[in-house]
Amino acid sequence: MLTNKRTISVEFGECDPSGIVYNPNYFIWFDLSVHALFARGGVDLKTFMTEFGIDGIPVVDYKCKFLAPARWGDELVIETSVVALHRCAFDMQHRVFNGGVLAVDCAETRVCTVNDPQQGRAKAFPLPDRLVAAFSGKKL
Amino acid sequence: MLTNKRTISVEFGECDPSGIVYNPNYFIWFDLSVHALFARGGVDLKTFMTEFGIDGIPVVDYKCKFLAPARWGDELVIETSVVALHRCAFDMQHRVFNGGVLAVDCAETRVCTVNDPQQGRAKAFPLPDRLVAAFSGKKL
Amino acid sequence: MLTNKRTISVEFGECDPSGIVYNPNYFIWFDLSVHALFARGGVDLKTFMTEFGIDGIPVVDYKCKFLAPARWGDELVIETSVVALHRCAFDMQHRVFNGGVLAVDCAETRVCTVNDPQQGRAKAFPLPDRLVAAFSGKKL
Amino acid sequence: MLTNKRTISVEFGECDPSGIVYNPNYFIWFDLSVHALFARGGVDLKTFMTEFGIDGIPVVDYKCKFLAPARWGDELVIETSVVALHRCAFDMQHRVFNGGVLAVDCAETRVCTVNDPQQGRAKAFPLPDRLVAAFSGKKL
Repeated sequence: MLTNKRTISVEFGECDPSGIVYNPNYFIWFDLSVHALFARGGVDLKTFMTEFGIDGIPVVDYKCKFLAPARWGDELVIETSVVALHRCAFDMQHRVFNGGVLAVDCAETRVCTVNDPQQGRAKAFPLPDRLVAAFSGKKL
Repeated sequence: MLTNKRTISVEFGECDPSGIVYNPNYFIWFDLSVHALFARGGVDLKTFMTEFGIDGIPVVDYKCKFLAPARWGDELVIETSVVALHRCAFDMQHRVFNGGVLAVDCAETRVCTVNDPQQGRAKAFPLPDRLVAAFSGKKL
Repeated sequence: MLTNKRTISVEFGECDPSGIVYNPNYFIWFDLSVHALFARGGVDLKTFMTEFGIDGIPVVDYKCKFLAPARWGDELVIETSVVALHRCAFDMQHRVFNGGVLAVDCAETRVCTVNDPQQGRAKAFPLPDRLVAAFSGKKL
Repeated sequence: MLTNKRTISVEFGECDPSGIVYNPNYFIWFDLSVHALFARGGVDLKTFMTEFGIDGIPVVDYKCKFLAPARWGDELVIETSVVALHRCAFDMQHRVFNGGVLAVDCAETRVCTVNDPQQGRAKAFPLPDRLVAAFSGKKL
């Protein structure tokens, strides 16, 4: 299955008055990691969405454990892997390492959606073959 | 157990190019809801932290299901309840209703921490009696 | 000219490790204040944009002086006034008071834009009469 | 005078429902650019603050013109230069180029502050010689 690693440096403005990362920032980083995972698989998300008429890939589930805090200047490695593929959804795992120690462990599920003009709302859309191939680590 | 409700209006800048709430904002709202829960229980968090030398109340666990998106202008009711008290930690549930429909359901665990100067890091600290009383909905 | 006041409480997560408001948050607050100004004038911005095919009301100019910092728990009054109306743009002033003392003074100019499909980009659009009336404090 | 360039890619979550960068993000980017400028000058801001007992380098003035919008996927070059040094303050200019075209032009002034325990608040602090040398592009 596809995996990707990103290294980020914790910025001053991402920390709160306790001096540790303000929690919601992790979910911004996970979002960036998902986008980077698509790129790693050779799929430009913006082009992909336009091509398939996909409205978005919203998160439907997070299970996130925070094991250790991170501070201004810490270098974090975020390792993101596809762990399961479903008909319209895919599961990932984000593991954030701080100085080699696992600091955050997060399971995330996203779903592909398209607009359903008749119902006036988004509906699930089967993962295109190209995405399945990219996420499986196979070439079509 | 203590519970609190807040009503918020989804702002333009909280939504992404798909027109729905950008996901990390929910975790900002949950943080505000936890602070409001303390206030509802008669505990001013800032004073409380100073009084007990508490460094922070970091999140250690989220389990969050997103059932329906929210859009600019939607009015959301966020209902936050204490669901369990542990020695140094407490569990809460956030339920976000959009037009009366459950849109997000999130379980959150936080821990009280103090600085441990000998170890040079935060360590868990037993919930003060006053907090236990406030969260149980009892008066000391 | 139309004016509006909002009172906000500075939240923990809006402050940085120095303990003061992380600067970009002021611009989020100004954006919310502009939206609230429309509402005060009886113009629902979302409906207004749909009705006139307006793409957005982007900021084209800020001149902002920060005179005093604000901290977690401070109550801020943000007073926002229309100060000038141009053909396609409007000038506002935001004054942020902290404990009655002027803490931030910001001049902001926004422009009304519509999509120009021929040029493939946004172009300025004359302020609709209804908006001019609302911002002048007149009734049409 | 010291200058630095950073290239960033506009992320999905940094854009609003109009599809353009949500304005306050520019001020986050400017903050990161100021920190990067210190690093470019050989001054690690965190160490520097500790060494001189500096509380912060808050912004006191922005003058910012937005000339063209940026969208998801756009590559922006942010060029940040020191333009003037004062006793306790320094002026910078940020120029954001999108596809080679100037999109945002921002003048920013920051001041060095230390805590004044007698007055219970921050006060201006003369720029240390090392910073003046770094910002002038001279070696001490």
